[in-house]
Amino acid sequence: MTPFSFDLTAADGRARAGVFHTPHGDLLTPVFAPVGTQATVKAVTPAQLHELGASLVLSNTYHLYLRPGDPLIAEMGGLHRFMNWPGPILTDSGGFQVFSLAATRKIDDDGVTFKSHTDGSQHRFTPEKSIAIQENLGADIIMAFDECAPPQDRPYSQRAMLRTHAWAERCLQAKRRPDQALFGIVQGGVFPDLRQQSAAFIASLGFPGHAIGGLSVGESKTDMYATLEVMDAVLPAEKPRYLMGVGTPEDLVNGILRGVDIFDCVLPTRLARHNAALLRSGGRLNLVNAVHARDPRPIDEACACYTCQHYSRAYLRHLIAAKEMLSATLLSLHNLYTLVQLARHIRQLILAGQFQNFAAAYLAQLNVEDMQDPSLNSLTDAFEKF
Amino acid sequence: MTPFSFDLTAADGRARAGVFHTPHGDLLTPVFAPVGTQATVKAVTPAQLHELGASLVLSNTYHLYLRPGDPLIAEMGGLHRFMNWPGPILTDSGGFQVFSLAATRKIDDDGVTFKSHTDGSQHRFTPEKSIAIQENLGADIIMAFDECAPPQDRPYSQRAMLRTHAWAERCLQAKRRPDQALFGIVQGGVFPDLRQQSAAFIASLGFPGHAIGGLSVGESKTDMYATLEVMDAVLPAEKPRYLMGVGTPEDLVNGILRGVDIFDCVLPTRLARHNAALLRSGGRLNLVNAVHARDPRPIDEACACYTCQHYSRAYLRHLIAAKEMLSATLLSLHNLYTLVQLARHIRQLILAGQFQNFAAAYLAQLNVEDMQDPSLNSLTDAFEKF
Repeated sequence: MTPFSFDLTAADGRARAGVFHTPHGDLLTPVFAPVGTQATVKAVTPAQLHELGASLVLSNTYHLYLRPGDPLIAEMGGLHRFMNWPGPILTDSGGFQVFSLAATRKIDDDGVTFKSHTDGSQHRFTPEKSIAIQENLGADIIMAFDECAPPQDRPYSQRAMLRTHAWAERCLQAKRRPDQALFGIVQGGVFPDLRQQSAAFIASLGFPGHAIGGLSVGESKTDMYATLEVMDAVLPAEKPRYLMGVGTPEDLVNGILRGVDIFDCVLPTRLARHNAALLRSGGRLNLVNAVHARDPRPIDEACACYTCQHYSRAYLRHLIAAKEMLSATLLSLHNLYTLVQLARHIRQLILAGQFQNFAAAYLAQLNVEDMQDPSLNSLTDAFEKF
Repeated sequence: MTPFSFDLTAADGRARAGVFHTPHGDLLTPVFAPVGTQATVKAVTPAQLHELGASLVLSNTYHLYLRPGDPLIAEMGGLHRFMNWPGPILTDSGGFQVFSLAATRKIDDDGVTFKSHTDGSQHRFTPEKSIAIQENLGADIIMAFDECAPPQDRPYSQRAMLRTHAWAERCLQAKRRPDQALFGIVQGGVFPDLRQQSAAFIASLGFPGHAIGGLSVGESKTDMYATLEVMDAVLPAEKPRYLMGVGTPEDLVNGILRGVDIFDCVLPTRLARHNAALLRSGGRLNLVNAVHARDPRPIDEACACYTCQHYSRAYLRHLIAAKEMLSATLLSLHNLYTLVQLARHIRQLILAGQFQNFAAAYLAQLNVEDMQDPSLNSLTDAFEKF
């Protein structure tokens, strides 16, 4: 019936390698999705995204609803055609963005009224509206409309969870397109019992995949990982799991260790626009620093991305100093490559039964590295085959 | 001895098709060179430049001398390696930029003292210094240091011409690298006798190629074309001619008709950053206009560039409205493709003996088109094979 199915190819501990079939191609999981908020991954063409190995792209419902408007995108043939990304696309529900507009939104059991960040105009999202917008956009994977809460606030987390559950049922009711997979979202803050309750309820609704919301918004890494542990035990293994908005290299390794399949994050492109390169080790290199001015080495001598294959740190620093747009492009290409390829590499390690060892060595070196500007020469053996 | 030679393959009237051999590859002329002022064509990668058919890239001596400095570029292996452009590169002499700093420079017979536009620091260019910088940069084609004058000011044009002649001799004396072709520059404003005198003098010095300076700086098109006519008769046919800083589609056609082989201009990338598409017809399309908001057509349905093959006007307008950097990239790709391919197409027409007819039809339609926002459907037959 549904064009969506998930094949679990291999497991290594709780880490999983799978294939999620979509109408726009198969996603090999674990997978990292670049974020194209406004129907473009900033400063990067789809041809470049394809070349660096990206398979899934995320776009934001809230932004596209406001500009250029989802009816316009539908009229132009849908988001795939509009933004020229022929592969799978995932859209969020708009929930997270709307709740981020803390000062200008009002939530009730039916939905949320909010003011646009672009022109202050008033709008209203309900579960039904979010689905209608996402059906206009036409992504392969769409999200139920949920309520995020500050993760340490138990009363609010509980209320938001219950509302999220009611809205999940309404989203399922509202959904019409058979060529889109609607994922339910688990909420519950950092509270194990709430997360357990939420995962069990959302799982009971029969979604083809599950998203884990409300993390990476202020809680500690320890809390995030503990929360993932709880859900791994409850969410059905035969459906993909998507950890929303999470994506440092460290988080990928830790998330995959705890059974997560799909990640997305603005980090690689945002860091790029702030002149920072993301290293496979998890560290960062700030290319503004004068120490790079005459450095003929690439960001990472072992990296096979377009930027590292062709450009010196000296050149990248020159572009930044000269305020040339190409710096954002070249750093985005490198940073996206780093995360996309880390997920692909981990998939190979899972297939070979070597991920647990890699993860242990990877996480151990994180503690000894200077996370801000590590020397590339001190990478551990974990990278030898990377 | 010299790795540079110019083969004239065909002529059609005074229009020429040739091959200029350089240490970094053959240039098929006529050719249009994208401008990479600060060692990057703004918002475009070299891979994208190559894909759109660019063969020659121009870079600016004044800008690179100030930032990051020519010794640094030499240390990084030269400009080709630094900016990752393996094909031929041309650098100007810095003369035009320095003279543009009207308020903060002082010219004498020996050279020019000026203040940096970036930090106000004081610097001095002489013919010898310009050559030394260009030897550090390492472009294939370098320019003699010249003085530009307001083209209608006869006394100044004459003084500047004589100084340019004296400096041309000093540049020849100063030049050491055998793997660079130094072009002499003809000056003389819009005055036929001065241009004739200058062309004859510069030609007598034995440069491997000649540049035509001081045009496209305020004179009328009529004056520019008349000036080109004068020089065609004087400059030796067996050496390439480069018309500096000129590059609308109309100028390409008119320049090639008058024996010019090489063009460069910031127009395509500058227009792109101002949201305008350059049309093969010579017209322009301002993509900010609301009329494009729901237009599913590409900029030009007959264009084979990456942008026109993949994107609607509606999408480009959305990127502009959303202030996304990708708009500059996609419009630059289209605009550069338009000029690079116009020059290539003209080369084919010259080889086939059909350029005179094409040029007549092309220039005729310019007069009937609305140059600001022409309908693409009214292109003349001249484009049928374009």
